[in-house]
Amino acid sequence: MKSAINDNQSRFERGLANLKKIDGEAGEKVIEGLKQIAPDLARYTIEYPFGDIYNRPGLDLRSREISTIAALTAMGNAEPQLKVHIQAGLNVGLTKEEIVEIIIQMSVYAGFPAALNGIKAAKEVFEKKQCEK
Amino acid sequence: MKSAINDNQSRFERGLANLKKIDGEAGEKVIEGLKQIAPDLARYTIEYPFGDIYNRPGLDLRSREISTIAALTAMGNAEPQLKVHIQAGLNVGLTKEEIVEIIIQMSVYAGFPAALNGIKAAKEVFEKKQCEK
Amino acid sequence: MKSAINDNQSRFERGLANLKKIDGEAGEKVIEGLKQIAPDLARYTIEYPFGDIYNRPGLDLRSREISTIAALTAMGNAEPQLKVHIQAGLNVGLTKEEIVEIIIQMSVYAGFPAALNGIKAAKEVFEKKQCEK
Amino acid sequence: MKSAINDNQSRFERGLANLKKIDGEAGEKVIEGLKQIAPDLARYTIEYPFGDIYNRPGLDLRSREISTIAALTAMGNAEPQLKVHIQAGLNVGLTKEEIVEIIIQMSVYAGFPAALNGIKAAKEVFEKKQCEK
Amino acid sequence: MKSAINDNQSRFERGLANLKKIDGEAGEKVIEGLKQIAPDLARYTIEYPFGDIYNRPGLDLRSREISTIAALTAMGNAEPQLKVHIQAGLNVGLTKEEIVEIIIQMSVYAGFPAALNGIKAAKEVFEKKQCEK
Amino acid sequence: MKSAINDNQSRFERGLANLKKIDGEAGEKVIEGLKQIAPDLARYTIEYPFGDIYNRPGLDLRSREISTIAALTAMGNAEPQLKVHIQAGLNVGLTKEEIVEIIIQMSVYAGFPAALNGIKAAKEVFEKKQCEK
Repeated sequence: MKSAINDNQSRFERGLANLKKIDGEAGEKVIEGLKQIAPDLARYTIEYPFGDIYNRPGLDLRSREISTIAALTAMGNAEPQLKVHIQAGLNVGLTKEEIVEIIIQMSVYAGFPAALNGIKAAKEVFEKKQCEK
Repeated sequence: MKSAINDNQSRFERGLANLKKIDGEAGEKVIEGLKQIAPDLARYTIEYPFGDIYNRPGLDLRSREISTIAALTAMGNAEPQLKVHIQAGLNVGLTKEEIVEIIIQMSVYAGFPAALNGIKAAKEVFEKKQCEK
Repeated sequence: MKSAINDNQSRFERGLANLKKIDGEAGEKVIEGLKQIAPDLARYTIEYPFGDIYNRPGLDLRSREISTIAALTAMGNAEPQLKVHIQAGLNVGLTKEEIVEIIIQMSVYAGFPAALNGIKAAKEVFEKKQCEK
Repeated sequence: MKSAINDNQSRFERGLANLKKIDGEAGEKVIEGLKQIAPDLARYTIEYPFGDIYNRPGLDLRSREISTIAALTAMGNAEPQLKVHIQAGLNVGLTKEEIVEIIIQMSVYAGFPAALNGIKAAKEVFEKKQCEK
Repeated sequence: MKSAINDNQSRFERGLANLKKIDGEAGEKVIEGLKQIAPDLARYTIEYPFGDIYNRPGLDLRSREISTIAALTAMGNAEPQLKVHIQAGLNVGLTKEEIVEIIIQMSVYAGFPAALNGIKAAKEVFEKKQCEK
Repeated sequence: MKSAINDNQSRFERGLANLKKIDGEAGEKVIEGLKQIAPDLARYTIEYPFGDIYNRPGLDLRSREISTIAALTAMGNAEPQLKVHIQAGLNVGLTKEEIVEIIIQMSVYAGFPAALNGIKAAKEVFEKKQCEK
């Protein structure tokens, strides 16, 4: 039950690389925003989710982002993070249509308001992307 | 915005076929349990989630079950349905290892208790499956 | 903004009478169960919900129980209280059919698992009632 | 368990008529906003909640809106939909005082923050209505 | 199980004094905002949370605010109230560092999004305080 | 933002020591239960919550357990973990009376059902402790 080889230094570096690859600019902004008030939470966010979890071989990144978009849509109380992961979903190869499908499906498990608010978040991410082109 | 061809009869029949294919015996038990007290909720459960949503071409069944397992683990208040969909995940081709990965990842988005309780549900489904062999 | 006439004594007595009328035996059991470990929470439960809120003239008891059954079904994490209030709904004149309708409607706002678990709770309350006859 | 007579065409038409009657302009805006990004979710929102559920005879519209306002206040994560249904409550005959009562009662079941945020939503809907006169 | 001595008048007065001491200006604004639309919810908010609960001798105010900040961060759907209680935490002697620690710890129990959104709320409260100096 | 000195080996060992000290036997059982199905979640549970977070100097263990008991009571969907932490609260020096106070206070923020279910959990932990003497 021990991870012998990797020390925390490499968890952090590995996590930062994964964060940049998956979340892109939006993820880096989150980390930046934490630096003054809670730098250790920034470090943990890099180390545990991105250094440990997203680095695991048992599930591909595409499936990991499907999981995250579904969960955050269903929970309905984490809009900023949902937007970051809708963008992350696009970054790892999900199409807009697939993301919309995941969110529509949440109407079944978390109700229509959760799905409607998820679609609104997706719309804002997709339109922002459009503008930047 | 209209679905011209399929009438409700076919939504129901299509949904029942999907329910049997995806959820298997566990899904049929849910429907059976509703028959006396709320037969219309049984019908809606067949028609909307399984006749409409799981029938949509935009996302494969594997990705749909990833979404559902993630969402129900994160919500943490629907253990019977989570178990049905852990079984459904196995039915549509997810491995036990992949299901465990999805649940572990929820520790990031919904906290460790949600992940621990999700793993407990998975353990019970996996062990039941083992016994039946 | 002050309630001048009623002192706490009457809030408690009024609340206890309302609790007995609305929740019946199930409500009294809740209060009894709190006596040893948290008697003050028993007192508050009588005073605030039943002495203050359910005593207000602006909404009839029937509508109050509709509200409570809907909310507890949607929240999905308070099964014992949902059962008490399904019974309370029957006590204040809701029919079984109306209670089932309220719960089915929650599939729209909180998802199908919340509705399915709500129906299961209703089934257990209705069957218990049947047995006691 | 089958709905033989009504085909989807009529579910949609019936749902659209109910949506206009119950939610009014606010509901139509929701549908309009979905058209470009997720037209099928717009269709489902019309067909299932409004074509199927709000069309059921077992519970009057007034009681249905009580249920929805209570649930959305208690869930506390769907402010836009809560506002639409506070307006819908007024449309089907609930008074402002009754809506305020439903929300105050949620302090018992979901806590004071849920009730306070619900009242804030009601205030904004009531004031908007006032301005339009 | 009865509170014989204190009548409601004193619950209200005691609650108002506690509200001013603990929540300060932010709490008074909440009460002010309720006056026109739901004056009774203002009264209940003063009487029950502040007249009854925060007045109890069994737990010091510092521990009570730790509880509240933790709970509201974890629930993730009551940002205005979380901000009021981050300020209240400072008012009763918690340091900014301790408040940040409580919020970081919520990453374990409610997930990283809840902690990240809690830190954002804290940042806004701390910066506002800074500006007022 | 990097933790240079401690490698993962020491995070794990430090976490295991903290887990034993804080959660006691109940915590070890959780880890044991994960070993076959999700050993890595066992490791993460030791490393992140107990090796990283509970090890931080900025907040004493007593305040950390107050936070956790409050949050889990308010969330209302993690009864096994709430029980572990009610026991942990006793282990780090909270009295039964203080734990009951924290839970009663949650009636304000998460509603009476959350508080009632929290008290039920506390009762079961306290009575088990009594029996073991």
